Amino acid sequence: MNPWGGHDIEDLMPGMHASFTKTISAQDIDGFAQVSGDDNALHLDEEYARATRFGGRIAHGMLTGSLVSAALAKHLPGPGAVYLSQQLEFLAPVRPGDSVTATVTVSSVEPAAARVALITTCHVGARLVLQGEARLKTTYRNPAKARHD
Amino acid sequence: MNPWGGHDIEDLMPGMHASFTKTISAQDIDGFAQVSGDDNALHLDEEYARATRFGGRIAHGMLTGSLVSAALAKHLPGPGAVYLSQQLEFLAPVRPGDSVTATVTVSSVEPAAARVALITTCHVGARLVLQGEARLKTTYRNPAKARHD
Repeated sequence: MNPWGGHDIEDLMPGMHASFTKTISAQDIDGFAQVSGDDNALHLDEEYARATRFGGRIAHGMLTGSLVSAALAKHLPGPGAVYLSQQLEFLAPVRPGDSVTATVTVSSVEPAAARVALITTCHVGARLVLQGEARLKTTYRNPAKARHD
Repeated sequence: MNPWGGHDIEDLMPGMHASFTKTISAQDIDGFAQVSGDDNALHLDEEYARATRFGGRIAHGMLTGSLVSAALAKHLPGPGAVYLSQQLEFLAPVRPGDSVTATVTVSSVEPAAARVALITTCHVGARLVLQGEARLKTTYRNPAKARHD
């Protein structure tokens, strides 16, 4: 572990995984609209959304994606890691009141560069609503390695 | 245009582009932490963040990414489109008070499937802070086409 409680690159192995679960409330969707500027009526207006193919308000895809970011930042690799990239596929809608579990699973580790790739998924119950891949750079346990980076 | 003010697939051509600009405030970062659950001190605690390589609080990468989502949802393709996927590379930090411009540029159009791909970038002044690619499915102007989808 690094001084901030996150994983050093030497701690990581393919198959390691962690999850973060959050219930997305109508207020979370309102809040995401405010901070992102994405105030599409599909997300905010129940009456409008009921007349669409979705049949009611849905969360922004990127709000669901942000739970992946939380799982990475809080748990695996955890604090001290730097986010390099994220790929997201939005597979199914998430509705106010849905409990979303974001799971991140180490898929590959590059010890020399302190880089790690993780498969990222979000489920509502058994339903896969989002999948993708993240890449991060984390810390070295052996500080001598960092000088060669 | 579709009934919601967004672009039908027949309206779209490679090279078309649109932008959305927002100044990311410290309050936006606090709000994003709340809705996403990503309460890493690097984003929230100025004193902690000052001691890191970043030298101060930075916005969550996915908060910057959410401005891309806003440009897509508000302008191009605009309302009526469904978000299929988003790839994001986080290239440089965004700090409280930075004005971020998200630009989306049509790169390819699949008329038969009503699918469009866009190159997505975020700049702070001349500095590229994020780049990636989005894919969406939008509406058909000719409703007969939709029946074959």
